[in-house]
Amino acid sequence: MPGMDHDGGSQTEGGHTMAPVDVSGAPAAAPDARGNQPLEPKLVDGVKEFELATSVIKWNILPDVQVGAYAYNGQVPGPLIRVNVGDQVRVRVKNNLPEPTSVHWHGLSIPNAQDGAADVTQPPIKPGETFTYEYTVPNTPGTFFYHTHVQGDRQQPLGLYGALIIDDPNAQPDASQEYIVELGEWRVADGQTFPAMEFDGMLPNFFTINGKSYPATETVKAKVGERIRFRFIGSGQFIHPMHIHGGPFEIVATDGNPVPEGARLTKDTVLVGPGERYDVVWTAREPGKWLLHCHINHHITNNGAEVAGGGGLTMVIEVAP
Amino acid sequence: MPGMDHDGGSQTEGGHTMAPVDVSGAPAAAPDARGNQPLEPKLVDGVKEFELATSVIKWNILPDVQVGAYAYNGQVPGPLIRVNVGDQVRVRVKNNLPEPTSVHWHGLSIPNAQDGAADVTQPPIKPGETFTYEYTVPNTPGTFFYHTHVQGDRQQPLGLYGALIIDDPNAQPDASQEYIVELGEWRVADGQTFPAMEFDGMLPNFFTINGKSYPATETVKAKVGERIRFRFIGSGQFIHPMHIHGGPFEIVATDGNPVPEGARLTKDTVLVGPGERYDVVWTAREPGKWLLHCHINHHITNNGAEVAGGGGLTMVIEVAP
Amino acid sequence: MPGMDHDGGSQTEGGHTMAPVDVSGAPAAAPDARGNQPLEPKLVDGVKEFELATSVIKWNILPDVQVGAYAYNGQVPGPLIRVNVGDQVRVRVKNNLPEPTSVHWHGLSIPNAQDGAADVTQPPIKPGETFTYEYTVPNTPGTFFYHTHVQGDRQQPLGLYGALIIDDPNAQPDASQEYIVELGEWRVADGQTFPAMEFDGMLPNFFTINGKSYPATETVKAKVGERIRFRFIGSGQFIHPMHIHGGPFEIVATDGNPVPEGARLTKDTVLVGPGERYDVVWTAREPGKWLLHCHINHHITNNGAEVAGGGGLTMVIEVAP
Repeated sequence: MPGMDHDGGSQTEGGHTMAPVDVSGAPAAAPDARGNQPLEPKLVDGVKEFELATSVIKWNILPDVQVGAYAYNGQVPGPLIRVNVGDQVRVRVKNNLPEPTSVHWHGLSIPNAQDGAADVTQPPIKPGETFTYEYTVPNTPGTFFYHTHVQGDRQQPLGLYGALIIDDPNAQPDASQEYIVELGEWRVADGQTFPAMEFDGMLPNFFTINGKSYPATETVKAKVGERIRFRFIGSGQFIHPMHIHGGPFEIVATDGNPVPEGARLTKDTVLVGPGERYDVVWTAREPGKWLLHCHINHHITNNGAEVAGGGGLTMVIEVAP
Repeated sequence: MPGMDHDGGSQTEGGHTMAPVDVSGAPAAAPDARGNQPLEPKLVDGVKEFELATSVIKWNILPDVQVGAYAYNGQVPGPLIRVNVGDQVRVRVKNNLPEPTSVHWHGLSIPNAQDGAADVTQPPIKPGETFTYEYTVPNTPGTFFYHTHVQGDRQQPLGLYGALIIDDPNAQPDASQEYIVELGEWRVADGQTFPAMEFDGMLPNFFTINGKSYPATETVKAKVGERIRFRFIGSGQFIHPMHIHGGPFEIVATDGNPVPEGARLTKDTVLVGPGERYDVVWTAREPGKWLLHCHINHHITNNGAEVAGGGGLTMVIEVAP
Repeated sequence: MPGMDHDGGSQTEGGHTMAPVDVSGAPAAAPDARGNQPLEPKLVDGVKEFELATSVIKWNILPDVQVGAYAYNGQVPGPLIRVNVGDQVRVRVKNNLPEPTSVHWHGLSIPNAQDGAADVTQPPIKPGETFTYEYTVPNTPGTFFYHTHVQGDRQQPLGLYGALIIDDPNAQPDASQEYIVELGEWRVADGQTFPAMEFDGMLPNFFTINGKSYPATETVKAKVGERIRFRFIGSGQFIHPMHIHGGPFEIVATDGNPVPEGARLTKDTVLVGPGERYDVVWTAREPGKWLLHCHINHHITNNGAEVAGGGGLTMVIEVAP
């Protein structure tokens, strides 16, 4: 175990937190499986019911790099939950991990009992158990996310997070398409996966957008003149200055709240901290392949190496004339 | 000494900077002692006189975790200095450390000779010596802080910082209560305390709000509908995305200056960098226990372990109906 | 090679990326040479022609500390390119490094083929080869920069970046002088220079403003009442909270775009992330020596040591009455 100069310290759980993922018996997702897949609710008496289940899986962040991950519904990140303001939602969370967990609805104004803060607003969901969250979606359309609130330094970087988008069906969209960007970091060493964190021997050497490292990240396709809304989600444990080539973007919202019109910054790089969200609108000005990437250059490598054009937190926006 | 691959480099003081705290002969503060205690001035000919004294102490960041610390007036953080705009203040600083120090009044527009930048605006205050600062409090009500300006990578993370709040007696408060949040990081290993810094072998494994790690942090109590002003102070060496559960806050001021009304962001997570301050107003919307914490999850552990609900940079806001 | 627990991992180039700089045969720049020197263009048929050439050099970041660096035109940072909106520019880049490179014009809206993203918009410029960039300077006066876009985690921290300022000849200046602040980090160990990055064994122990560590940084001279525009450029791989003593500054622009007037923050510390730029206007209020420095205190040390007043990312503003 790397960096564990504090084994046997005053807290005894530290060892487990930084231990490698035990993937024995864990199923492997298809190498080309993608996270952030839309989760369809079942409508029951006017309530949108969603099912989430945690488990340990093997997950390919690159065709030839498989990590041990903690997943919601077998994908990293967890599935996309997309709802409307005012919706009644019910989310059943089945815990198939060998350890307790919970789900926090980050940024939402909901009753305390639904907040998901383990040991504070609810007992942790034990292995094999199910917990049901139920709330009215607040009147705040925007970019939110959900994630574990048990041993977050271990469970969250290993994959227990997913996008939660609240729509206002009556709002005019300010972009012709959108793309969600969930940021993550991994520590892979000696064939094992560790939760990446800012500690000696735990610093990350792989980085993912929506669970994949470049060149396995997706390509966004657009036409000149199109406006694309990128929804950046700080879902990992590191701060990322996200940069887009081909001219600046406008920051239109943060943490699920609109930026007042007179206060919108035009920038080409925005710091996205863990827990933060930034919605930016970028205009496709010129045809060609434009990079979107983190500007901490170490974060656009795969295990210290750059492949053609980048790596890790890199993706391409392909603009047609 | 961890991480010292550069012993004997071109600069010879490095070894001392990263050395563990020598606590031999240092007194221990009461295990439940708290920092940030209001410092009462003595009024002398219309001048508010404050007394600060530095020293090495043993300080409990948790009931069972004692660190070696550098303290002002025997507490971590140093005492709260609260003054009004236009006040005449005089601060006598007695240095009882075994090394030189100074005090910088971070963010204040005051004469150069009072700025506290050792070796630039004044000689360092040697062990056993006293230096007196004297200035008129500028007309900028808001959140400031004071801290050492000698070997800041060592002295400041070890505890030499404190809040300095400037009030305008004629202003209308925009919240019914307020709470100061001073952020800190520690490196405890092999029973010794090191100044935490972003260097190999020096990364932190303990984190404190006002000198205490959760669950030893304080609980803020409020009623539904109350507005609470949190004054975040980046008093350590690491950037912290501070998050509050139970709905977003409004950023009303930064670095002691109001944010223009039309530019106030509503967010649920704000990056607080070293030296920065953010004043946010959070409304207690629903009864229950709401967490306030750093969203770098490693920073809400104590030596790599999460205790019930979090650890390190975690505290609870308890809202009554 | 420090921190290389992932040698022989799935990517084989990692070793090279983190290897020390091979300075055999590299010339040494004069110990007092400075980077960011204005690059004079040659006017050819109405086009401003600039010449850039990369090479390995020995570069003094302090009188007694010499690093191995990758340079444009033998200086670190590369020369200052200053142009007007609407200018036609042509930049010939000769690669004298032993490895491929390219030049990205960060933040500029220009045709895709001129973007400099190696392996995406152009082939890398091989050792010994020349590539010519040509474009119309967009109508966005402000602070930009150029940098390598090949193995950026290695080439950029080693020095391959430079300021690119776009002026509008018809605009009224909002300050009587300005100063460009390009931030950098270095790892020097065992007499060798490594590209500093946030990875085990690669964390930086030296820090530079415009290629020099304090006290070798420049001093800005001003008179009371003067307004100085500082153009901060996040040219390295680490986030820096840049602080100025002697009263706050106003953030007037970011990433080459003006901040709307009603949204300008008055602060004394601003987080500058890699790839970001912040233009701040600071007023000289009182005579004396005022520090400008990063507030991560480790970043104002040289190899772990503070010299009189600071180190690394420190400089002085000397204000005369």
